[in-house]
Amino acid sequence: MGGTVFLNGEFMPRSRARISPDDRGFLFGDGLYEVTPAYGGRFLALDRHLARLQRGTKELRMAFPQGLEELHRELLRRNDLEDEEMSIVYLQVTRGTAPRTHHFPDPSVPATVYAWARAFERPTREAWEKGFSAVSVVDRRWARADLKTIQLLPQVLAQQDAREGGATDALLVRDGLALEGAHNNVFFVFGDTLATHPASNQILPGITREIVLGLARENGIPVKERPVSLAEAHQAAEIFFTGTTTEVRPTVRLDGRPVGEGTVGPLTRRLQTAFLARVSRECGAAVT
Amino acid sequence: MGGTVFLNGEFMPRSRARISPDDRGFLFGDGLYEVTPAYGGRFLALDRHLARLQRGTKELRMAFPQGLEELHRELLRRNDLEDEEMSIVYLQVTRGTAPRTHHFPDPSVPATVYAWARAFERPTREAWEKGFSAVSVVDRRWARADLKTIQLLPQVLAQQDAREGGATDALLVRDGLALEGAHNNVFFVFGDTLATHPASNQILPGITREIVLGLARENGIPVKERPVSLAEAHQAAEIFFTGTTTEVRPTVRLDGRPVGEGTVGPLTRRLQTAFLARVSRECGAAVT
Repeated sequence: MGGTVFLNGEFMPRSRARISPDDRGFLFGDGLYEVTPAYGGRFLALDRHLARLQRGTKELRMAFPQGLEELHRELLRRNDLEDEEMSIVYLQVTRGTAPRTHHFPDPSVPATVYAWARAFERPTREAWEKGFSAVSVVDRRWARADLKTIQLLPQVLAQQDAREGGATDALLVRDGLALEGAHNNVFFVFGDTLATHPASNQILPGITREIVLGLARENGIPVKERPVSLAEAHQAAEIFFTGTTTEVRPTVRLDGRPVGEGTVGPLTRRLQTAFLARVSRECGAAVT
Repeated sequence: MGGTVFLNGEFMPRSRARISPDDRGFLFGDGLYEVTPAYGGRFLALDRHLARLQRGTKELRMAFPQGLEELHRELLRRNDLEDEEMSIVYLQVTRGTAPRTHHFPDPSVPATVYAWARAFERPTREAWEKGFSAVSVVDRRWARADLKTIQLLPQVLAQQDAREGGATDALLVRDGLALEGAHNNVFFVFGDTLATHPASNQILPGITREIVLGLARENGIPVKERPVSLAEAHQAAEIFFTGTTTEVRPTVRLDGRPVGEGTVGPLTRRLQTAFLARVSRECGAAVT
Protein backbone atom coordinates (compact mmCIF):
# COMPACT_ATOMS: atom_id res chain seq x y z
CA MET A 1 0.00 0.00 0.00
CA GLY A 2 2.14 2.83 -1.24
CA GLY A 3 2.10 5.31 -4.06
CA THR A 4 0.60 8.74 -4.49
CA VAL A 5 -3.10 9.10 -3.75
CA PHE A 6 -5.57 11.94 -4.13
CA LEU A 7 -7.65 13.17 -1.21
CA ASN A 8 -9.86 16.24 -1.24
CA GLY A 9 -7.91 18.30 -3.73
CA GLU A 10 -4.39 17.19 -2.88
CA PHE A 11 -1.97 14.54 -4.03
CA MET A 12 -0.01 12.91 -1.20
CA PRO A 13 1.75 9.70 -0.20
CA ARG A 14 -0.80 7.05 0.78
CA SER A 15 0.73 6.90 4.26
CA ARG A 16 -0.27 10.55 4.80
CA ALA A 17 -3.88 10.24 3.61
CA ARG A 18 -6.25 10.66 6.55
CA ILE A 19 -9.97 11.39 6.84
CA SER A 20 -12.23 12.25 9.72
CA PRO A 21 -14.04 9.25 11.23
CA ASP A 22 -17.09 11.53 11.07
CA ASP A 23 -17.08 11.18 7.31
CA ARG A 24 -20.47 9.86 6.19
CA GLY A 25 -18.67 7.26 4.12
CA PHE A 26 -17.36 5.78 7.37
CA LEU A 27 -20.49 6.31 9.52
CA PHE A 28 -23.22 5.44 7.00
CA GLY A 29 -21.72 3.97 3.84
CA ASP A 30 -23.06 7.15 2.25
CA GLY A 31 -20.97 7.16 -0.92
CA LEU A 32 -20.22 5.79 -4.37
CA TYR A 33 -17.15 4.43 -6.12
CA GLU A 34 -15.75 3.49 -9.52
CA VAL A 35 -12.83 1.34 -10.65
CA THR A 36 -11.59 2.28 -14.13
CA PRO A 37 -8.99 0.29 -16.09
CA ALA A 38 -6.13 1.63 -18.14
CA TYR A 39 -4.10 -0.40 -20.60
CA GLY A 40 -0.66 0.92 -21.52
CA GLY A 41 -1.59 4.09 -19.65
CA ARG A 42 -4.79 4.78 -21.65
CA PHE A 43 -8.20 4.43 -20.05
CA LEU A 44 -10.88 2.15 -21.39
CA ALA A 45 -14.36 3.74 -21.32
CA LEU A 46 -13.49 6.34 -18.68
CA ASP A 47 -16.40 8.42 -19.96
CA ARG A 48 -18.84 5.58 -19.22
CA HIS A 49 -17.44 5.07 -15.72
CA LEU A 50 -17.81 8.79 -14.96
CA ALA A 51 -21.32 8.83 -16.46
CA ARG A 52 -22.30 5.95 -14.17
CA LEU A 53 -20.86 7.80 -11.18
CA GLN A 54 -22.73 10.93 -12.20
CA ARG A 55 -25.98 9.00 -12.42
CA GLY A 56 -25.30 7.59 -8.94
CA THR A 57 -24.68 11.01 -7.43
CA LYS A 58 -27.91 12.23 -9.02
CA GLU A 59 -29.92 9.29 -7.61
CA LEU A 60 -28.43 9.82 -4.14
CA ARG A 61 -28.56 13.62 -4.44
CA MET A 62 -24.85 14.02 -3.84
CA ALA A 63 -22.41 16.48 -5.41
CA PHE A 64 -20.63 15.33 -8.58
CA PRO A 65 -17.03 16.53 -8.36
CA GLN A 66 -15.41 18.34 -11.26
CA GLY A 67 -12.12 17.50 -12.90
CA LEU A 68 -12.33 13.73 -12.49
CA GLU A 69 -11.02 12.91 -15.95
CA GLU A 70 -7.85 14.92 -15.41
CA LEU A 71 -7.55 13.43 -11.90
CA HIS A 72 -7.50 9.94 -13.41
CA ARG A 73 -4.73 10.85 -15.85
CA GLU A 74 -2.70 12.60 -13.19
CA LEU A 75 -2.84 9.56 -10.90
CA LEU A 76 -1.37 7.39 -13.65
CA ARG A 77 1.38 9.95 -14.26
CA ARG A 78 2.29 10.41 -10.60
CA ASN A 79 2.42 6.65 -10.03
CA ASP A 80 4.49 5.88 -13.14
CA LEU A 81 1.75 3.67 -14.55
CA GLU A 82 1.73 5.02 -18.09
CA ASP A 83 3.68 2.06 -19.43
CA GLU A 84 1.98 -0.65 -17.38
CA GLU A 85 0.16 -3.33 -19.35
CA MET A 86 -2.85 -2.78 -17.05
CA SER A 87 -3.57 -0.50 -14.14
CA ILE A 88 -6.68 0.62 -12.30
CA VAL A 89 -7.86 3.86 -10.76
CA TYR A 90 -10.10 3.59 -7.71
CA LEU A 91 -12.29 6.62 -7.05
CA GLN A 92 -14.65 7.13 -4.11
CA VAL A 93 -16.99 10.05 -3.43
CA THR A 94 -18.93 10.46 -0.18
CA ARG A 95 -21.46 12.98 1.09
CA GLY A 96 -18.74 14.49 3.30
CA THR A 97 -18.01 15.06 6.98
CA ALA A 98 -20.72 16.33 9.31
CA PRO A 99 -22.16 15.76 12.79
CA ARG A 100 -23.90 12.36 12.69
CA THR A 101 -27.54 12.57 11.55
CA HIS A 102 -29.31 10.01 9.40
CA HIS A 103 -30.75 12.76 7.21
CA PHE A 104 -28.46 14.66 4.82
CA PRO A 105 -26.27 17.37 6.38
CA ASP A 106 -28.19 20.64 6.33
CA PRO A 107 -26.60 22.82 5.07
CA SER A 108 -24.70 20.44 2.83
CA VAL A 109 -20.95 19.98 3.24
CA PRO A 110 -18.22 19.41 0.64
CA ALA A 111 -18.00 15.88 -0.78
CA THR A 112 -15.04 13.75 0.21
CA VAL A 113 -13.08 12.58 -2.84
CA TYR A 114 -10.50 9.80 -2.50
CA ALA A 115 -8.66 8.18 -5.39
CA TRP A 116 -5.63 6.02 -6.02
CA ALA A 117 -4.04 4.03 -8.82
CA ARG A 118 -2.08 0.83 -8.98
CA ALA A 119 -0.79 -1.73 -11.44
CA PHE A 120 -3.12 -4.68 -11.96
CA GLU A 121 -1.74 -8.11 -12.72
CA ARG A 122 -3.86 -9.83 -15.34
CA PRO A 123 -4.06 -13.63 -15.21
CA THR A 124 -1.53 -15.41 -17.39
CA ARG A 125 -2.76 -16.95 -20.62
CA GLU A 126 -2.15 -20.37 -19.02
CA ALA A 127 -4.31 -19.58 -16.00
CA TRP A 128 -7.04 -18.20 -18.26
CA GLU A 129 -6.99 -21.30 -20.49
CA LYS A 130 -7.30 -23.53 -17.44
CA GLY A 131 -10.43 -21.63 -16.38
CA PHE A 132 -11.81 -20.58 -13.01
CA SER A 133 -14.44 -21.78 -10.59
CA ALA A 134 -17.47 -20.14 -8.97
CA VAL A 135 -19.87 -20.94 -6.14
CA SER A 136 -23.45 -19.75 -5.79
CA VAL A 137 -24.18 -17.56 -2.77
CA VAL A 138 -27.43 -16.04 -1.52
CA ASP A 139 -27.76 -12.42 -2.69
CA ARG A 140 -28.34 -10.36 0.47
CA ARG A 141 -27.98 -6.90 -1.08
CA TRP A 142 -30.29 -3.92 -0.76
CA ALA A 143 -32.93 -2.99 -3.31
CA ARG A 144 -30.67 -0.68 -5.37
CA ALA A 145 -27.93 -2.99 -6.57
CA ASP A 146 -27.84 -0.84 -9.71
CA LEU A 147 -26.05 1.91 -7.76
CA LYS A 148 -22.33 1.43 -7.22
CA THR A 149 -22.39 2.37 -3.55
CA ILE A 150 -19.78 1.59 -0.92
CA GLN A 151 -22.36 -0.53 0.97
CA LEU A 152 -20.44 -3.64 0.05
CA LEU A 153 -20.76 -5.88 3.09
CA PRO A 154 -23.03 -8.43 1.33
CA GLN A 155 -20.48 -8.61 -1.48
CA VAL A 156 -17.66 -8.91 1.07
CA LEU A 157 -19.39 -11.86 2.72
CA ALA A 158 -20.19 -13.47 -0.65
CA GLN A 159 -16.62 -13.10 -1.90
CA GLN A 160 -15.30 -14.51 1.38
CA ASP A 161 -17.62 -17.51 0.93
CA ALA A 162 -16.24 -18.01 -2.59
CA ARG A 163 -12.67 -17.76 -1.36
CA GLU A 164 -13.26 -20.27 1.42
CA GLY A 165 -14.93 -22.54 -1.11
CA GLY A 166 -11.74 -22.41 -3.19
CA ALA A 167 -13.51 -20.44 -5.94
CA THR A 168 -12.62 -17.25 -7.79
CA ASP A 169 -16.13 -15.89 -8.24
CA ALA A 170 -19.35 -15.73 -6.23
CA LEU A 171 -22.58 -16.14 -8.20
CA LEU A 172 -25.30 -14.14 -6.41
CA VAL A 173 -28.68 -15.86 -6.35
CA ARG A 174 -31.92 -14.14 -5.38
CA ASP A 175 -35.32 -15.81 -5.53
CA GLY A 176 -33.73 -18.65 -7.46
CA LEU A 177 -32.23 -16.35 -10.12
CA ALA A 178 -28.50 -16.17 -10.90
CA LEU A 179 -28.13 -12.38 -11.12
CA GLU A 180 -24.45 -11.50 -11.27
CA GLY A 181 -21.17 -11.84 -9.38
CA ALA A 182 -20.09 -10.14 -6.16
CA HIS A 183 -18.14 -7.55 -8.18
CA ASN A 184 -18.87 -8.47 -11.78
CA ASN A 185 -21.67 -9.55 -14.13
CA VAL A 186 -22.28 -13.05 -15.41
CA PHE A 187 -23.16 -14.56 -18.80
CA PHE A 188 -24.39 -18.04 -19.69
CA VAL A 189 -24.34 -19.90 -22.99
CA PHE A 190 -27.32 -22.08 -23.90
CA GLY A 191 -27.03 -23.65 -27.38
CA ASP A 192 -25.63 -20.83 -29.55
CA THR A 193 -27.21 -18.07 -27.45
CA LEU A 194 -25.78 -15.83 -24.73
CA ALA A 195 -28.01 -15.04 -21.75
CA THR A 196 -27.54 -12.53 -18.94
CA HIS A 197 -29.90 -10.92 -16.44
CA PRO A 198 -31.50 -7.77 -17.88
CA ALA A 199 -30.47 -4.38 -16.51
CA SER A 200 -32.68 -3.63 -13.50
CA ASN A 201 -32.44 -2.47 -9.88
CA GLN A 202 -31.10 -5.94 -9.06
CA ILE A 203 -27.81 -5.83 -10.95
CA LEU A 204 -25.03 -3.36 -11.51
CA PRO A 205 -25.00 -1.95 -15.05
CA GLY A 206 -21.48 -3.14 -15.79
CA ILE A 207 -19.38 -1.25 -18.33
CA THR A 208 -17.66 -4.47 -19.44
CA ARG A 209 -21.10 -6.12 -19.59
CA GLU A 210 -22.20 -3.42 -22.04
CA ILE A 211 -19.02 -3.75 -24.09
CA VAL A 212 -19.42 -7.55 -24.28
CA LEU A 213 -23.09 -7.24 -25.26
CA GLY A 214 -22.03 -4.91 -28.08
CA LEU A 215 -19.26 -7.27 -29.19
CA ALA A 216 -21.67 -10.19 -29.22
CA ARG A 217 -24.06 -8.28 -31.48
CA GLU A 218 -21.23 -7.15 -33.79
CA ASN A 219 -20.09 -10.77 -34.05
CA GLY A 220 -23.54 -12.13 -34.83
CA ILE A 221 -23.84 -14.00 -31.54
CA PRO A 222 -27.51 -14.15 -30.45
CA VAL A 223 -28.07 -12.54 -27.04
CA LYS A 224 -31.03 -12.71 -24.70
CA GLU A 225 -31.13 -10.37 -21.73
CA ARG A 226 -33.40 -12.47 -19.56
CA PRO A 227 -33.51 -13.90 -16.02
CA VAL A 228 -31.58 -17.16 -15.67
CA SER A 229 -32.32 -19.50 -12.78
CA LEU A 230 -29.58 -21.21 -10.79
CA ALA A 231 -30.98 -24.55 -11.99
CA GLU A 232 -30.55 -23.39 -15.60
CA ALA A 233 -27.09 -22.04 -14.79
CA HIS A 234 -26.07 -25.52 -13.73
CA GLN A 235 -27.06 -26.72 -17.23
CA ALA A 236 -25.23 -23.96 -19.14
CA ALA A 237 -22.72 -24.98 -21.79
CA GLU A 238 -20.48 -22.07 -20.85
CA ILE A 239 -20.37 -19.48 -18.08
CA PHE A 240 -18.21 -16.39 -17.86
CA PHE A 241 -18.03 -13.34 -15.64
CA THR A 242 -17.30 -9.83 -16.93
CA GLY A 243 -15.95 -6.78 -15.16
CA THR A 244 -13.27 -4.12 -15.05
CA THR A 245 -10.64 -6.35 -13.48
CA THR A 246 -12.45 -9.57 -14.47
CA GLU A 247 -12.41 -8.80 -18.23
CA VAL A 248 -14.00 -11.99 -19.70
CA ARG A 249 -13.33 -14.76 -17.16
CA PRO A 250 -14.34 -18.36 -17.97
CA THR A 251 -15.98 -20.43 -15.24
CA VAL A 252 -15.27 -24.10 -15.78
CA ARG A 253 -16.67 -25.31 -12.45
CA LEU A 254 -19.81 -24.09 -10.68
CA ASP A 255 -20.62 -25.35 -7.18
CA GLY A 256 -18.03 -28.10 -7.62
CA ARG A 257 -19.53 -29.44 -10.85
CA PRO A 258 -18.05 -29.00 -14.34
CA VAL A 259 -19.64 -26.38 -16.59
CA GLY A 260 -20.28 -28.04 -19.97
CA GLU A 261 -17.14 -30.04 -20.79
CA GLY A 262 -15.35 -28.44 -17.83
CA THR A 263 -13.10 -26.52 -20.22
CA VAL A 264 -13.14 -22.97 -21.61
CA GLY A 265 -15.87 -22.85 -24.25
CA PRO A 266 -15.73 -21.44 -27.79
CA LEU A 267 -18.07 -18.47 -27.27
CA THR A 268 -16.19 -17.39 -24.15
CA ARG A 269 -12.93 -17.54 -26.11
CA ARG A 270 -14.38 -15.63 -29.04
CA LEU A 271 -15.64 -12.87 -26.80
CA GLN A 272 -12.40 -12.60 -24.82
CA THR A 273 -10.51 -12.29 -28.12
CA ALA A 274 -12.94 -9.65 -29.34
CA PHE A 275 -12.71 -7.83 -26.00
CA LEU A 276 -8.91 -7.74 -26.05
CA ALA A 277 -8.99 -6.57 -29.69
CA ARG A 278 -11.29 -3.74 -28.58
CA VAL A 279 -8.89 -2.87 -25.76
CA SER A 280 -5.95 -2.89 -28.16
CA ARG A 281 -7.80 -0.63 -30.59
CA GLU A 282 -9.15 1.85 -28.01
CA CYS A 283 -6.05 2.00 -25.84
CA GLY A 284 -3.41 1.48 -28.52
CA ALA A 285 -1.89 -1.28 -26.41
CA ALA A 286 -1.20 -4.84 -27.45
CA VAL A 287 -3.00 -6.92 -24.80
CA THR A 288 -3.23 -10.70 -25.07
CA MET B 1 -18.50 18.66 16.84
CA GLY B 2 -16.06 18.91 19.72
CA GLY B 3 -15.24 16.96 22.83
CA THR B 4 -12.90 14.11 23.53
CA VAL B 5 -13.27 11.00 21.38
CA PHE B 6 -11.66 7.57 21.45
CA LEU B 7 -9.84 6.15 18.45
CA ASN B 8 -7.82 2.94 18.40
CA GLY B 9 -6.67 3.00 21.99
CA GLU B 10 -6.30 6.73 22.51
CA PHE B 11 -8.43 9.58 23.75
CA MET B 12 -8.03 12.78 21.76
CA PRO B 13 -9.86 15.96 20.73
CA ARG B 14 -12.34 15.19 17.97
CA SER B 15 -10.53 17.62 15.69
CA ARG B 16 -7.44 15.39 15.87
CA ALA B 17 -9.20 12.08 15.18
CA ARG B 18 -8.15 10.76 11.76
CA ILE B 19 -8.39 7.36 10.09
CA SER B 20 -6.98 5.93 6.92
CA PRO B 21 -9.34 6.11 3.92
CA ASP B 22 -8.29 2.49 3.37
CA ASP B 23 -10.29 1.51 6.45
CA ARG B 24 -12.80 -1.16 5.48
CA GLY B 25 -15.47 0.86 7.24
CA PHE B 26 -14.92 3.59 4.64
CA LEU B 27 -14.35 1.35 1.60
CA PHE B 28 -16.95 -1.38 2.23
CA GLY B 29 -19.22 -0.40 5.14
CA ASP B 30 -17.59 -3.40 6.81
CA GLY B 31 -18.43 -2.57 10.42
CA LEU B 32 -20.94 -2.40 13.25
CA TYR B 33 -22.06 0.27 15.71
CA GLU B 34 -24.01 0.86 18.89
CA VAL B 35 -25.57 3.92 20.51
CA THR B 36 -26.00 3.53 24.26
CA PRO B 37 -27.88 6.01 26.47
CA ALA B 38 -26.88 7.27 29.91
CA TYR B 39 -29.18 9.12 32.26
CA GLY B 40 -27.53 11.21 34.97
CA GLY B 41 -24.25 9.63 33.94
CA ARG B 42 -25.40 6.02 34.38
CA PHE B 43 -25.90 3.73 31.43
CA LEU B 44 -29.15 2.00 30.66
CA ALA B 45 -28.69 -1.61 29.54
CA LEU B 46 -25.06 -1.19 28.48
CA ASP B 47 -24.65 -4.95 28.88
CA ARG B 48 -27.39 -5.60 26.32
CA HIS B 49 -25.87 -3.13 23.85
CA LEU B 50 -22.48 -4.79 24.15
CA ALA B 51 -24.03 -8.26 23.86
CA ARG B 52 -25.74 -7.17 20.63
CA LEU B 53 -22.44 -5.85 19.31
CA GLN B 54 -20.72 -9.07 20.28
CA ARG B 55 -23.33 -11.10 18.43
CA GLY B 56 -22.80 -8.86 15.38
CA THR B 57 -19.03 -9.34 15.42
CA LYS B 58 -19.57 -13.08 15.67
CA GLU B 59 -21.98 -13.12 12.71
CA LEU B 60 -19.59 -11.04 10.62
CA ARG B 61 -16.51 -12.86 11.94
CA MET B 62 -14.91 -9.66 13.22
CA ALA B 63 -12.87 -9.12 16.37
CA PHE B 64 -14.79 -8.06 19.48
CA PRO B 65 -12.69 -5.43 21.27
CA GLN B 66 -12.01 -5.71 24.99
CA GLY B 67 -12.59 -3.01 27.60
CA LEU B 68 -15.68 -1.46 26.02
CA GLU B 69 -17.57 -1.03 29.28
CA GLU B 70 -14.76 0.99 30.83
CA LEU B 71 -14.39 2.92 27.56
CA HIS B 72 -18.04 3.98 27.82
CA ARG B 73 -17.61 5.22 31.38
CA GLU B 74 -14.38 7.03 30.56
CA LEU B 75 -15.99 8.88 27.65
CA LEU B 76 -18.69 10.23 29.97
CA ARG B 77 -16.04 11.32 32.49
CA ARG B 78 -13.77 12.99 29.96
CA ASN B 79 -16.68 14.86 28.40
CA ASP B 80 -18.18 16.05 31.71
CA LEU B 81 -21.42 14.21 31.00
CA GLU B 82 -21.87 12.55 34.37
CA ASP B 83 -24.48 15.07 35.49
CA GLU B 84 -26.32 15.39 32.18
CA GLU B 85 -29.98 14.38 32.22
CA MET B 86 -29.29 12.27 29.12
CA SER B 87 -26.23 11.57 27.04
CA ILE B 88 -25.28 8.99 24.42
CA VAL B 89 -22.15 7.07 23.57
CA TYR B 90 -21.60 6.17 19.92
CA LEU B 91 -19.31 3.21 19.30
CA GLN B 92 -18.18 1.87 15.92
CA VAL B 93 -16.02 -1.16 15.19
CA THR B 94 -14.74 -2.03 11.71
CA ARG B 95 -12.68 -4.86 10.27
CA GLY B 96 -9.67 -2.52 10.08
CA THR B 97 -7.36 -1.02 7.47
CA ALA B 98 -5.94 -3.17 4.69
CA PRO B 99 -5.27 -3.11 0.94
CA ARG B 100 -8.66 -3.19 -0.78
CA THR B 101 -9.98 -6.72 -1.38
CA HIS B 102 -13.60 -7.80 -1.14
CA HIS B 103 -12.62 -10.85 0.90
CA PHE B 104 -11.45 -10.42 4.50
CA PRO B 105 -7.85 -9.24 4.98
CA ASP B 106 -5.57 -12.28 5.15
CA PRO B 107 -3.87 -12.23 7.58
CA SER B 108 -6.40 -10.28 9.61
CA VAL B 109 -5.62 -6.75 10.79
CA PRO B 110 -6.53 -4.96 14.04
CA ALA B 111 -10.12 -3.71 14.25
CA THR B 112 -10.72 0.03 14.10
CA VAL B 113 -12.56 1.28 17.21
CA TYR B 114 -14.06 4.77 17.23
CA ALA B 115 -16.27 6.15 20.01
CA TRP B 116 -17.58 9.46 21.23
CA ALA B 117 -20.11 10.84 23.70
CA ARG B 118 -22.39 13.82 23.74
CA ALA B 119 -25.33 15.26 25.63
CA PHE B 120 -28.70 14.37 24.13
CA GLU B 121 -31.60 16.78 24.34
CA ARG B 122 -34.80 14.90 25.08
CA PRO B 123 -38.04 16.40 23.73
CA THR B 124 -39.85 18.66 26.15
CA ARG B 125 -42.94 17.30 27.86
CA GLU B 126 -44.99 19.74 25.76
CA ALA B 127 -43.54 18.46 22.49
CA TRP B 128 -44.11 14.87 23.59
CA GLU B 129 -47.73 15.58 24.55
CA LYS B 130 -48.35 17.16 21.17
CA GLY B 131 -47.10 14.01 19.47
CA PHE B 132 -45.07 13.40 16.33
CA SER B 133 -45.70 12.38 12.74
CA ALA B 134 -44.40 9.59 10.52
CA VAL B 135 -44.45 8.72 6.84
CA SER B 136 -44.24 5.28 5.29
CA VAL B 137 -41.21 4.65 3.09
CA VAL B 138 -40.22 1.60 1.04
CA ASP B 139 -37.73 -0.58 2.98
CA ARG B 140 -34.72 -1.00 0.69
CA ARG B 141 -32.36 -2.62 3.19
CA TRP B 142 -30.30 -5.78 2.78
CA ALA B 143 -31.35 -9.20 4.03
CA ARG B 144 -29.69 -8.88 7.47
CA ALA B 145 -31.48 -5.91 9.02
CA ASP B 146 -31.02 -7.68 12.35
CA LEU B 147 -27.32 -6.73 12.33
CA LYS B 148 -26.49 -3.18 13.40
CA THR B 149 -24.06 -2.54 10.56
CA ILE B 150 -22.86 0.81 9.27
CA GLN B 151 -24.52 0.08 5.90
CA LEU B 152 -27.07 2.77 6.59
CA LEU B 153 -27.71 4.35 3.21
CA PRO B 154 -31.28 2.97 2.92
CA GLN B 155 -32.01 4.38 6.37
CA VAL B 156 -30.36 7.68 5.40
CA LEU B 157 -32.62 7.95 2.34
CA ALA B 158 -35.71 6.95 4.33
CA GLN B 159 -35.00 9.46 7.09
CA GLN B 160 -34.37 12.17 4.50
CA ASP B 161 -37.76 11.33 2.93
CA ALA B 162 -39.40 11.64 6.35
CA ARG B 163 -37.69 14.97 7.00
CA GLU B 164 -38.74 16.36 3.64
CA GLY B 165 -42.26 15.15 4.34
CA GLY B 166 -42.22 17.19 7.55
CA ALA B 167 -42.25 14.02 9.66
CA THR B 168 -40.11 12.86 12.57
CA ASP B 169 -40.09 9.14 11.80
CA ALA B 170 -39.92 6.93 8.71
CA LEU B 171 -42.00 3.75 8.80
CA LEU B 172 -40.21 1.14 6.68
CA VAL B 173 -42.56 -1.00 4.60
CA ARG B 174 -41.52 -4.22 2.85
CA ASP B 175 -43.92 -6.46 0.95
CA GLY B 176 -46.78 -4.47 2.43
CA LEU B 177 -45.60 -4.98 6.03
CA ALA B 178 -44.82 -2.11 8.41
CA LEU B 179 -41.58 -3.47 9.91
CA GLU B 180 -39.92 -0.74 11.95
CA GLY B 181 -38.50 2.79 11.73
CA ALA B 182 -35.31 3.95 10.01
CA HIS B 183 -33.47 3.92 13.37
CA ASN B 184 -36.07 2.59 15.80
CA ASN B 185 -38.79 -0.06 16.20
CA VAL B 186 -42.52 0.54 15.95
CA PHE B 187 -45.55 -0.60 17.95
CA PHE B 188 -49.24 -0.44 17.09
CA VAL B 189 -52.31 -0.59 19.33
CA PHE B 190 -55.37 -2.50 18.10
CA GLY B 191 -58.16 -2.64 20.67
CA ASP B 192 -56.38 -3.29 23.98
CA THR B 193 -53.50 -5.17 22.35
CA LEU B 194 -49.99 -4.09 21.38
CA ALA B 195 -48.58 -5.42 18.11
CA THR B 196 -45.07 -5.24 16.72
CA HIS B 197 -43.18 -7.18 14.07
CA PRO B 198 -41.55 -10.33 15.48
CA ALA B 199 -37.77 -10.47 15.82
CA SER B 200 -36.38 -11.78 12.53
CA ASN B 201 -33.72 -10.96 9.94
CA GLN B 202 -35.96 -8.12 8.80
CA ILE B 203 -35.83 -5.90 11.89
CA LEU B 204 -33.23 -4.74 14.36
CA PRO B 205 -33.60 -6.41 17.77
CA GLY B 206 -34.00 -3.10 19.61
CA ILE B 207 -32.97 -2.88 23.26
CA THR B 208 -35.75 -0.38 23.99
CA ARG B 209 -38.15 -2.66 22.09
CA GLU B 210 -37.23 -5.50 24.47
CA ILE B 211 -37.59 -3.24 27.52
CA VAL B 212 -41.02 -2.03 26.34
CA LEU B 213 -42.17 -5.59 25.61
CA GLY B 214 -41.16 -6.52 29.17
CA LEU B 215 -42.93 -3.49 30.63
CA ALA B 216 -46.10 -4.31 28.71
CA ARG B 217 -46.11 -7.85 30.11
CA GLU B 218 -45.40 -6.61 33.65
CA ASN B 219 -48.31 -4.18 33.30
CA GLY B 220 -50.74 -6.78 32.00
CA ILE B 221 -50.96 -5.25 28.53
CA PRO B 222 -51.57 -7.99 25.91
CA VAL B 223 -48.81 -8.12 23.30
CA LYS B 224 -48.70 -9.88 19.96
CA GLU B 225 -45.41 -10.06 18.12
CA ARG B 226 -46.82 -10.45 14.63
CA PRO B 227 -46.49 -8.88 11.17
CA VAL B 228 -48.62 -5.74 10.75
CA SER B 229 -49.51 -4.51 7.28
CA LEU B 230 -49.35 -0.85 6.32
CA ALA B 231 -53.11 -0.98 5.69
CA GLU B 232 -53.61 -2.19 9.28
CA ALA B 233 -51.17 0.41 10.56
CA HIS B 234 -53.40 3.10 9.06
CA GLN B 235 -56.25 1.71 11.21
CA ALA B 236 -54.27 1.52 14.48
CA ALA B 237 -55.69 3.30 17.52
CA GLU B 238 -52.16 4.26 18.60
CA ILE B 239 -48.68 4.08 17.10
CA PHE B 240 -45.37 4.68 18.82
CA PHE B 241 -41.72 4.21 17.94
CA THR B 242 -39.12 2.95 20.43
CA GLY B 243 -35.36 3.34 20.46
CA THR B 244 -32.33 4.53 22.37
CA THR B 245 -32.82 8.20 21.55
CA THR B 246 -36.49 7.73 20.60
CA GLU B 247 -37.51 6.30 24.01
CA VAL B 248 -41.31 5.87 23.58
CA ARG B 249 -42.37 8.37 20.90
CA PRO B 250 -46.05 8.78 20.04
CA THR B 251 -47.04 9.08 16.38
CA VAL B 252 -50.24 11.10 16.04
CA ARG B 253 -50.14 11.41 12.24
CA LEU B 254 -49.15 8.75 9.72
CA ASP B 255 -48.88 9.65 6.03
CA GLY B 256 -50.73 12.89 6.74
CA ARG B 257 -53.73 11.20 8.38
CA PRO B 258 -54.52 11.23 12.12
CA VAL B 259 -53.70 8.07 14.09
CA GLY B 260 -56.80 7.22 16.14
CA GLU B 261 -58.04 10.52 17.61
CA GLY B 262 -54.87 12.26 16.42
CA THR B 263 -53.70 12.63 20.02
CA VAL B 264 -51.32 10.68 22.25
CA GLY B 265 -53.12 7.51 23.28
CA PRO B 266 -53.46 5.97 26.75
CA LEU B 267 -51.32 2.86 26.17
CA THR B 268 -48.50 4.95 24.71
CA ARG B 269 -48.64 7.21 27.75
CA ARG B 270 -48.70 4.27 30.18
CA LEU B 271 -45.68 2.69 28.54
CA GLN B 272 -43.69 5.94 28.40
CA THR B 273 -44.40 6.44 32.13
CA ALA B 274 -43.34 2.87 32.87
CA PHE B 275 -40.23 3.31 30.71
CA LEU B 276 -39.17 6.49 32.48
CA ALA B 277 -39.81 4.83 35.87
CA ARG B 278 -37.53 2.00 34.77
CA VAL B 279 -34.87 4.53 33.71
CA SER B 280 -35.17 6.32 37.05
CA ARG B 281 -34.84 3.05 38.95
CA GLU B 282 -31.93 1.63 36.93
CA CYS B 283 -29.99 4.86 36.53
CA GLY B 284 -30.94 6.52 39.80
CA ALA B 285 -31.92 9.62 37.85
CA ALA B 286 -35.25 11.42 37.97
CA VAL B 287 -36.33 11.58 34.32
CA THR B 288 -39.74 12.89 33.29
